[in-house]
Amino acid sequence: MRSGLQNAREKISTDKFTKLMGIQLLEVKRGYCKAMMTVTRDMLNFHNLAHGAAIFSLADVAFAAASNSYDYTALGLNMNINYRSPANEGMKLTAEAFEESRGRRTAVYRIVVKHGRKIVAIAQGMVYIKTER
Amino acid sequence: MRSGLQNAREKISTDKFTKLMGIQLLEVKRGYCKAMMTVTRDMLNFHNLAHGAAIFSLADVAFAAASNSYDYTALGLNMNINYRSPANEGMKLTAEAFEESRGRRTAVYRIVVKHGRKIVAIAQGMVYIKTER
Amino acid sequence: MRSGLQNAREKISTDKFTKLMGIQLLEVKRGYCKAMMTVTRDMLNFHNLAHGAAIFSLADVAFAAASNSYDYTALGLNMNINYRSPANEGMKLTAEAFEESRGRRTAVYRIVVKHGRKIVAIAQGMVYIKTER
Amino acid sequence: MRSGLQNAREKISTDKFTKLMGIQLLEVKRGYCKAMMTVTRDMLNFHNLAHGAAIFSLADVAFAAASNSYDYTALGLNMNINYRSPANEGMKLTAEAFEESRGRRTAVYRIVVKHGRKIVAIAQGMVYIKTER
Repeated sequence: MRSGLQNAREKISTDKFTKLMGIQLLEVKRGYCKAMMTVTRDMLNFHNLAHGAAIFSLADVAFAAASNSYDYTALGLNMNINYRSPANEGMKLTAEAFEESRGRRTAVYRIVVKHGRKIVAIAQGMVYIKTER
Repeated sequence: MRSGLQNAREKISTDKFTKLMGIQLLEVKRGYCKAMMTVTRDMLNFHNLAHGAAIFSLADVAFAAASNSYDYTALGLNMNINYRSPANEGMKLTAEAFEESRGRRTAVYRIVVKHGRKIVAIAQGMVYIKTER
Repeated sequence: MRSGLQNAREKISTDKFTKLMGIQLLEVKRGYCKAMMTVTRDMLNFHNLAHGAAIFSLADVAFAAASNSYDYTALGLNMNINYRSPANEGMKLTAEAFEESRGRRTAVYRIVVKHGRKIVAIAQGMVYIKTER
Repeated sequence: MRSGLQNAREKISTDKFTKLMGIQLLEVKRGYCKAMMTVTRDMLNFHNLAHGAAIFSLADVAFAAASNSYDYTALGLNMNINYRSPANEGMKLTAEAFEESRGRRTAVYRIVVKHGRKIVAIAQGMVYIKTER
């Protein structure tokens, strides 16, 4: 029998959107994920900066992996993101998702997107936990 | 001399991320935008549903167009999204961004993503308005 | 047998925090509430403006009444508030909570706080719906 | 000449809403505050639990103190709160506000409300920094 953690890694490796954005999972543990994405030319907005939604995508993939690292499926209910500094083409960004609180039906994660030590965005996300597998 | 509205349309037509996601702007007015996106296979997550970040992308593009429809540049500061119902491959989704409040330095928008009449997600976003052009 | 709507009105009339803040419910319908509060001296912050939490309180009471106007108990999960203009001592503020989307387990509301026609704050809140009464 | 930190402490000691809610500042440092509040009878909602807005108030006071601990005035722009577990009458709650990111014009704080080690609520707030004193 395989654990939720193994399943999470396998499932996410089949995630097409994660592939589209070129996002790599560097580390997945119970309630934690670190992911990486390089800002490519087709992720730029009309200011020639990384589009907010591209930065959000990296945060969201880390959030999904961290919250699905248990035996139960977690579905995103709410996400709140604060943009802190712009990102440019070619930058390698990382996102870390940390579990803040896990209840029976919902869990909350904090996600920090960085370029090196500089914070690019900070998010807070809530998932619904499906207890029927 | 061209207005902010004309510039917004032209600028957004050069937005590479909007093109990557296949998002079309159906209508842009001062403080308003309606956009459309078809959920493609490469936007799916490991549940085989549209990834939350793909849905967010549509909302964010509508938000960016609506908030940049004036003579000043608007930069996203904060976005809060509530996911309401899943979207599947092939669905045509629309997003409408409505201006809720516009001040001197910031403005707030409400964005509704729908499939037909069904609400897929509801978001609230705040921009910073750069008064130096 | 009394409906959820009647129960909601009666319950809220026993809400001690609502009384502490001097908040009056002007109207309660299924999924809707309009409430009123006068900014008193003891609601001011050190800028001598209405404290953000006092403005939030008015929004939250309207949200609670609107979301508890059905036969099931609704519990606040998430609230996101954008402050738009300051309020001063003596101002009569109103808050209207509108149901944006109601599902089986969660519902989302939009709450607008105003002074006359001027928007003071805009919020978005999500409740969990307890289906076991 | 007095520093922003001293001014912050003095200013907050004149904050009427903080007094109304019986909130005490246990510690204020640059970008940090720990505050305490006892849930009183008049803070209860119609479920006989601490009202969400009372919990928010504690978080907001800690956020205001932490963000006003510099030489510049900070004004709340946005606050997002996730409620995690209920609080009852008589409980002593603490809130800690941590600076996540500080820029030239805005700063972001993370606020954790607890009863002992149990998380009651987690919030994320953004302030606008007035650079003209």
